[in-house]
Amino acid sequence: MASNTSRGEFALIDFIRRRAAASPVVKVGIGDDCAVLDLSDGPIVVTTDLIVEGVHFDGAAPLRDVGWKAAAVSFSDVAAMGLRPEALFCAAALPEAFTMQQAEQILLGLNDCCSEFGVAMAGGDTTSSRGPLSLCTTALGCARGLRPLTRSGARVGDAILVTDSLGGSILGKHLRFRPRVDEAVALNRAFQIHAMMDISDGLSADLNHILEESKAGAVLEADAIPISDAARRMGAGSGKTPLQHALSDGEDFELLFTMDPDAARRLIEQPIFQTPVSIIGAITQSGLFIRHLGQLLPLKPEGYEHFR
Amino acid sequence: MASNTSRGEFALIDFIRRRAAASPVVKVGIGDDCAVLDLSDGPIVVTTDLIVEGVHFDGAAPLRDVGWKAAAVSFSDVAAMGLRPEALFCAAALPEAFTMQQAEQILLGLNDCCSEFGVAMAGGDTTSSRGPLSLCTTALGCARGLRPLTRSGARVGDAILVTDSLGGSILGKHLRFRPRVDEAVALNRAFQIHAMMDISDGLSADLNHILEESKAGAVLEADAIPISDAARRMGAGSGKTPLQHALSDGEDFELLFTMDPDAARRLIEQPIFQTPVSIIGAITQSGLFIRHLGQLLPLKPEGYEHFR
Repeated sequence: MASNTSRGEFALIDFIRRRAAASPVVKVGIGDDCAVLDLSDGPIVVTTDLIVEGVHFDGAAPLRDVGWKAAAVSFSDVAAMGLRPEALFCAAALPEAFTMQQAEQILLGLNDCCSEFGVAMAGGDTTSSRGPLSLCTTALGCARGLRPLTRSGARVGDAILVTDSLGGSILGKHLRFRPRVDEAVALNRAFQIHAMMDISDGLSADLNHILEESKAGAVLEADAIPISDAARRMGAGSGKTPLQHALSDGEDFELLFTMDPDAARRLIEQPIFQTPVSIIGAITQSGLFIRHLGQLLPLKPEGYEHFR
Repeated sequence: MASNTSRGEFALIDFIRRRAAASPVVKVGIGDDCAVLDLSDGPIVVTTDLIVEGVHFDGAAPLRDVGWKAAAVSFSDVAAMGLRPEALFCAAALPEAFTMQQAEQILLGLNDCCSEFGVAMAGGDTTSSRGPLSLCTTALGCARGLRPLTRSGARVGDAILVTDSLGGSILGKHLRFRPRVDEAVALNRAFQIHAMMDISDGLSADLNHILEESKAGAVLEADAIPISDAARRMGAGSGKTPLQHALSDGEDFELLFTMDPDAARRLIEQPIFQTPVSIIGAITQSGLFIRHLGQLLPLKPEGYEHFR
């Protein structure tokens, strides 16, 4: 994986090799052409994500937090399949002016997140670039007896649920957020979850992804949507209401999922983890609506967009 | 894998979804949080690589060739393990001024290379960037009864071999090169290969990687090193000899491997594929030397470096 390895890159490889925890999943780790993984217990899931300075974080963000975010974004995608991430790869384009210490901060952030979730740092690549810092992470998980949860299984009558609260992530949460790995695996283990994804584009846009893949519609209940404190703070000056922020802000990285409404009520009454869960609506035949102040209004799937 | 999906990104996802060939390996492909792969026949190998405009290709390179290269670089790493790539993921940072047509050219190049080697395009991510075009590819392969070949197995007395010819890749080969997938798998199937890698940093630097991982030394035979026509052309005006180019130029993407010397002679006498193979030296206890005009000279592991 390390084409065009240089002295600086070797030092970085050593730096992370010393810190990467041993893992029963990794048979050959950092330092060969490929990592060799033993992930043979059922299907594997793979996700790749790219975060770029000026788009997903700004130049003032602590580099250790940027490293954390790069890992967490991919872990959130594996969690969105109801599975646990097991191995992480990271390719980094480092600005030419970067020092070794700066590069190490990023690696430490990646390693923080890997340690927190028991994921093996299994390989990567670095290159220098005239451009902004960009980090490409690839995370792998394995079914291990569980069913990977896709976006396509929502059924008419399903309850729609989200973890925690939504909106205003840009005020800080988007950087060192906690991917809902434990919650997703617990849900997948304890319940028949019909469809699941993580909210990265914003609630309405991402719900629309589930509806398109499941060929269904939905009605959201405005009063039931858990609005974050950050969304309320932003609503004070943004010209948008806190509800609008909760519906359309990107990078919440909360779980959005659908399940049988009776099972959903059981989950609310007898929580299986501490993170709050809310029932925010129901799956219908077609269309996307929100019930707000007694009225049923069409809801446009609007989210964060950066490549037009 | 698609955080912050936008209209442009959706159009690109559709574009590549229509072209991506169906694969028995891919259970859930492009369009969910993760791809779901069925790669359970033995260990899997994973590699991630990043290519950036201005470092790995210049702005004048045809974008379809850049797409090919991004895929081929990762396929070459899987080949270097003696295995066949089976699934590819690509994350792209596209300059803000990029048109849909330019992005499509890259995807077509990726798809060309996937089609050529029977690899499934299984997912990816795109984002816009103020910086140069960068493409991060992740390729996966599966052992399927074969042994993954690492850099660490070279034994004293082994013959050292390379495929085809070396040096001067920058004159053109580095872009639309053919990764040695078929050759690597054929070698792994027919012989006990002790160590293998692909030459990306240059022959002497990469041989040194094998020596470090195998705790061994080597003597190269200058007369036996297959010098490419491009290395000869470059030698005419670069101030370096064609041999120096063959020893130190990066991005040859040929296979470098070691095996029992008797088996190596059998391979030369009874080739198992058309690509030429040369015996270029032998593994020793320690040190790295080259025999040139009757003299045994110490050889410095010099290769292409870009991050200092």
